[in-house]
Amino acid sequence: MDERAALRLVGGLVDAAGDDAAVVDGTVLTIDMLHERTDFPTGTTRYTAGWRAVGASLSDVAAMGAEATAAVGVYGAPAFDPDDLEQFVAGASEVCDHVDATYVGGDLDDTEEFTVATAAVGETDEAVTRDGARPGDVLCVTGTLGRTAAALDYFAAGDLERANALFRFTPRVAAGVALREHATAMMDSSDGLARSVHQLAEASECGFVLDGEAVPVAPELRETADETEAFDRALTTGEDFELVCTLPEDVVETVRDELDVSLHVVGTVIADRERVTLDGEPLPDVGYTH
Amino acid sequence: MDERAALRLVGGLVDAAGDDAAVVDGTVLTIDMLHERTDFPTGTTRYTAGWRAVGASLSDVAAMGAEATAAVGVYGAPAFDPDDLEQFVAGASEVCDHVDATYVGGDLDDTEEFTVATAAVGETDEAVTRDGARPGDVLCVTGTLGRTAAALDYFAAGDLERANALFRFTPRVAAGVALREHATAMMDSSDGLARSVHQLAEASECGFVLDGEAVPVAPELRETADETEAFDRALTTGEDFELVCTLPEDVVETVRDELDVSLHVVGTVIADRERVTLDGEPLPDVGYTH
Repeated sequence: MDERAALRLVGGLVDAAGDDAAVVDGTVLTIDMLHERTDFPTGTTRYTAGWRAVGASLSDVAAMGAEATAAVGVYGAPAFDPDDLEQFVAGASEVCDHVDATYVGGDLDDTEEFTVATAAVGETDEAVTRDGARPGDVLCVTGTLGRTAAALDYFAAGDLERANALFRFTPRVAAGVALREHATAMMDSSDGLARSVHQLAEASECGFVLDGEAVPVAPELRETADETEAFDRALTTGEDFELVCTLPEDVVETVRDELDVSLHVVGTVIADRERVTLDGEPLPDVGYTH
Repeated sequence: MDERAALRLVGGLVDAAGDDAAVVDGTVLTIDMLHERTDFPTGTTRYTAGWRAVGASLSDVAAMGAEATAAVGVYGAPAFDPDDLEQFVAGASEVCDHVDATYVGGDLDDTEEFTVATAAVGETDEAVTRDGARPGDVLCVTGTLGRTAAALDYFAAGDLERANALFRFTPRVAAGVALREHATAMMDSSDGLARSVHQLAEASECGFVLDGEAVPVAPELRETADETEAFDRALTTGEDFELVCTLPEDVVETVRDELDVSLHVVGTVIADRERVTLDGEPLPDVGYTH
């Protein structure tokens, strides 16, 4: 059984699964696990690892439209180097500061591979789930897509300073809070835009029509990949931790004024569940599988 | 650097570290990671693993005197067997039911070794920390000590039904809530009673005088070990997830009436920071290091 099938099974076993984070009595809770082999390319500093791991959990809180309260982490490594640990905590604390949350430490674990588990908690009385998109709504994405793809190129090329900088991101907590009043459905783009759209389509039982020209490809990715490749990777690489949401068309301008990040209208919600297209062609459901 | 030294370093880097769980604005948050090799003996069912992993996080919430709200878990395994997953979620959900919390799923991860990360969240306006023990208070422990030590014997002997049953425990959330009004310091016994007492002594800057006869050795451990060995292991094996707390002596009877579990007075708090004794002899600071 692959992970997506397994996740569907878990989704059927517990009521609250299926969104980026669970909500119980207004409390939003999420947990993630990241590994050196799959998530931290060679050259990722411990500062960046702490930032990115905790940031991924904070992004899940953001995707629910919640304020972030606090985050914790387990630092698992074969040995505990004081500098490494200090850097990890510094990165974890810094990303929390960016979203007005508190990093409250956590635990250590003796693991063969560098492994990080993080959890974040938030609060909201009106969580935005994935299942409310309505035909006629517009599909929007915050920021740009492809920063992580560009970072991977810089890691591969040995430009570690640039790579690490691109690997750190601001979780869209403030944007999520501004969007929650208006968004009919929301999630983060951690699986890539293409897969995210398919997940919204499945949860909301609708289709989508996307306009390729409107997809905000990260300028950093245009420096490392040609135009076609940059576009494909911006759509599918994932791990950019932007917000993907649906909005009534008439609120877009109002919402834009309230956001601290750019908001791009990249498509429209349609009733036909069988149709998810990009520039008139079927959009393959491919992307990053965690 | 060993884990305890590393934890002290992390404790110095983030304000909220040092207790069983962190508290931010009345929200209690904790995270743990468990592994097949170190935490789940051969023969541990996935049902028991789900129960125990989530239970460990709920125990941290209990140790702060908080109501438990919800828990999440990451299930990491080399492959996803539907029955295994279903059992894991069933165990995780069941232990949450026991403490009026909700298991809200979580995530899956592809790991070489079976690995579980769990987080739990709770609420309290009056968290009990480790640093408030005062000379003259009595030292108390809930339930009995040595169930996990007995479970390990049954795992080794191949009596897996008995072993799994002993490995599942009720997190002391209700007891923690009842104790929070009165307890001057509290933690759970996950590192064993001996080490827990040393941790309370360090945090509260006090000493302890323990009475060996009063230590509630689990009857199950008396079946698998002789009296001396049972006593030593009850003190040091840990992972029993009972509460260890200090109370003003005059409230013990009142508190006992409010608890759904037995409460044993096992010693007294003294001012002398240099003295932690059991039956007049120094009590070694040994136990389970996570």
